[in-house]
Amino acid sequence: MRTPAKTFDMTSSAPDALFSARLDAAASDIEYLLDRLLSTAAATGEITRPKRLIDAVRYATLGGGKRLRPLLVIESGALFGVPRERALMTGAAIECVHCYSLVHDDLPAMDNDEIRRGRPTVHRAYDEATAILTGDSLLTFAFDVLAREQTHPDPGVRIALVAGLARAAGIGGMAGGQMLDLAAEGRFSSTTLSEGEIATLDAMKTGALIKFACVAGAILGQAPKAAHDALGRYGHALGQAFQIADDLLDIEGDASTVGKSTGKDAVRGKATFVDILGSEGAHARLAALVSQAEQALDQFGANAATLRAAARFVAARRA
Amino acid sequence: MRTPAKTFDMTSSAPDALFSARLDAAASDIEYLLDRLLSTAAATGEITRPKRLIDAVRYATLGGGKRLRPLLVIESGALFGVPRERALMTGAAIECVHCYSLVHDDLPAMDNDEIRRGRPTVHRAYDEATAILTGDSLLTFAFDVLAREQTHPDPGVRIALVAGLARAAGIGGMAGGQMLDLAAEGRFSSTTLSEGEIATLDAMKTGALIKFACVAGAILGQAPKAAHDALGRYGHALGQAFQIADDLLDIEGDASTVGKSTGKDAVRGKATFVDILGSEGAHARLAALVSQAEQALDQFGANAATLRAAARFVAARRA
Repeated sequence: MRTPAKTFDMTSSAPDALFSARLDAAASDIEYLLDRLLSTAAATGEITRPKRLIDAVRYATLGGGKRLRPLLVIESGALFGVPRERALMTGAAIECVHCYSLVHDDLPAMDNDEIRRGRPTVHRAYDEATAILTGDSLLTFAFDVLAREQTHPDPGVRIALVAGLARAAGIGGMAGGQMLDLAAEGRFSSTTLSEGEIATLDAMKTGALIKFACVAGAILGQAPKAAHDALGRYGHALGQAFQIADDLLDIEGDASTVGKSTGKDAVRGKATFVDILGSEGAHARLAALVSQAEQALDQFGANAATLRAAARFVAARRA
Repeated sequence: MRTPAKTFDMTSSAPDALFSARLDAAASDIEYLLDRLLSTAAATGEITRPKRLIDAVRYATLGGGKRLRPLLVIESGALFGVPRERALMTGAAIECVHCYSLVHDDLPAMDNDEIRRGRPTVHRAYDEATAILTGDSLLTFAFDVLAREQTHPDPGVRIALVAGLARAAGIGGMAGGQMLDLAAEGRFSSTTLSEGEIATLDAMKTGALIKFACVAGAILGQAPKAAHDALGRYGHALGQAFQIADDLLDIEGDASTVGKSTGKDAVRGKATFVDILGSEGAHARLAALVSQAEQALDQFGANAATLRAAARFVAARRA
């Protein structure tokens, strides 16, 4: 499904209304696909999917989440004519990694959170051991999904997705970012982060996976390097914007709207851009990042209208 | 490096002496490779490898372990002329998954173990959060390694390895097996496992990854289906033998020799084949599995001498 975005008037609010519709459609398609992929029946080569574990995996993955990352794959892929079903498979894999990271980050030994998406976290709804194994299973499953032929008929494309996801999620990406985040609380030694260190932390913890979702469309579409790089710049700015918006929500948001605990950063003693720049400064930085993200898409013209709207959505989100 | 095994006299003890030398050589090569792959410097596409995390990852991975799984890849690959360096890359990936599973299984919420390979477990040497992230990083890194060109120049082979490893390690394999193991203690409801249920648990928790190590050589060597299937049967029997030997060690072994706590199954109330068959019956079952494993290799003749020795080693190991 290609984006018929070139007919939009970019000065009106229409693209953002359309963006919401697109996000909803992606969420609904991803929900359907994950429900099927994470069925209770064992797949070929699996022995059995233990009931308690598949139940917890489904609890962690289904029935919630904005599914922003899958939408980014769909829309970046649409720039190169990538069929929606391939983008959805890739988006489902990324969503598995995203959900695993939430389950592990919420654990008592990590951020010790009790609410996620307005529901008890997995270790509260089940138990800690089940939550650890749920995260492990989801992380592993992401690569299972990427390895399937439905994701792309060309094994070279699939292996490029595996390489990119592993690099984005691993020790030099998301998992490393969570480590830096724990260190930033002063958990291992007292510490005050510089602006540069906060930028590194954010780029790893949140940015790497969002950026990968943006370039995944270029990988699926076997896009020219210039287009791939442009989506990388877009994804990088988008990831930064996402994290600053998250930090602002932590201060300005209300737990019932946000669907998770707020006010945590201050309690944890973790410095964010909001501390360094102040609320107003952070809002200004956010606006700058949105235009940076939009500009990175210049070469795609009106076809990238939904991705531009995604940047505005990320900055303006209240949850 | 091909196995010059056809000159062995299978009735003498020579193959087992040679087996030990081969296992040592594999261990030494894997140690060198993992040390390089898990260096403190960031790889391309990574932002940084946080010091505490890469230290813990190295602690969990280097300086210990028999490296049996990598040897299985090397020797099964040698049947098809697979270059040693490709088998080592694949073996390193499998070893990352094996080490991640040990780190997570040792966590307080899981098996709550304090000793592993004669040293404090990762959450004791570091802390729980670091141990969780260490496991997550190693699991992710395994797929990073498989995706690299040094593993195999053909992306189709690499993606087959990714698919196989994900299936063996995931919810329908190793992670699911750990869930069944926790359930077998009666942690979630009181339960008594049947012989069939113990077989399923073992096949998932221990068997799946060992079996994958055996078929990985066939995947790397793009072996004919009959050879691939034979290695699957060998790996399946080997995995069962490995677990029964482990259960016997838990009862008969001494913690200082085994390098981890013993006597745990009884304390945890977890039924094993040793409970059902008795010690003598379990030893008999072990011997039967070894000959089953050896017979599965018939089509490879004397070239499979080291794999046959591996089956005997697994059954006889004291640690």
